[in-house]
Amino acid sequence: MTARRGLEGLTPEQQRSWNAFMEMQEVLRSRIEQRLLAHSGLSNADYTVLVVLAAAPGRRMRLVDLGATLGWERSRLYHQLTRMCRRGLVQRGPMPDAQHARAIQAVLTDDGMAAIRQACRHHARDVRELVVDVLDDRQLEALGEASSALLAALRAPEQGRA
Amino acid sequence: MTARRGLEGLTPEQQRSWNAFMEMQEVLRSRIEQRLLAHSGLSNADYTVLVVLAAAPGRRMRLVDLGATLGWERSRLYHQLTRMCRRGLVQRGPMPDAQHARAIQAVLTDDGMAAIRQACRHHARDVRELVVDVLDDRQLEALGEASSALLAALRAPEQGRA
Repeated sequence: MTARRGLEGLTPEQQRSWNAFMEMQEVLRSRIEQRLLAHSGLSNADYTVLVVLAAAPGRRMRLVDLGATLGWERSRLYHQLTRMCRRGLVQRGPMPDAQHARAIQAVLTDDGMAAIRQACRHHARDVRELVVDVLDDRQLEALGEASSALLAALRAPEQGRA
Repeated sequence: MTARRGLEGLTPEQQRSWNAFMEMQEVLRSRIEQRLLAHSGLSNADYTVLVVLAAAPGRRMRLVDLGATLGWERSRLYHQLTRMCRRGLVQRGPMPDAQHARAIQAVLTDDGMAAIRQACRHHARDVRELVVDVLDDRQLEALGEASSALLAALRAPEQGRA
């Protein structure tokens, strides 16, 4: 029995699906990051932080909320934001309102907004070429549906159980 | 228009599917790595290299083939294998046969095989909890099918076009 077949309690079909997913996301992630770095100088992590902040009200989020959205531990978020602050993409500081006076927030800068706008133009082409043009509508929709279901479950323990 | 909505040439449905996928794999990847590190001391990258080598004939692969399978660039593979060699999980050396005399290969050690066997036992539980128990059969199958289609296209340029 190879290690690849060795996930106990999973049917062969479930293991095949899981292995295909794991390998795909490893290869796709690398390919997308190579392109992002080449055309925009951004890592996958930079890109994801910028996209999440750009979509947030006021382009700002409390660090605790940003960490929960990304599923990152505190130290990972801290180091990532330190690098992005140094490059002027993001600023970090206390919340301006009295209600959250002691909370620290991350704010997208104008340079950060310009960087994500520029990156999105090239990234759209990458996504079309590597994903959207490869799958038919039904496959892409199924991928989105499965992703949303997984994401909802992944985020549930943060708010509910623990 | 937020950056999140700003992928030109994609319909709103396509963008929703893509964003759901990107966020899901970011969060799932972090969660799985936290657990892998906690129960087995392995990163996602360690785990993937071990699984691929464990499934290869003779538990060995030429570096060029391993890099193509993982979709990794040369320097990333080099540094990853250097760390794994130091920990005794993998050995690196020339191919034993005359046909590939000048090719370098990576070989899974007995310690590496023991590490991946042990990790798989815990990882199977993580995969069931985070993925298999969350999706119904149809959703998991669709995820696997879309993944296989993407993977085939991602790997095609290596062998075909360029």
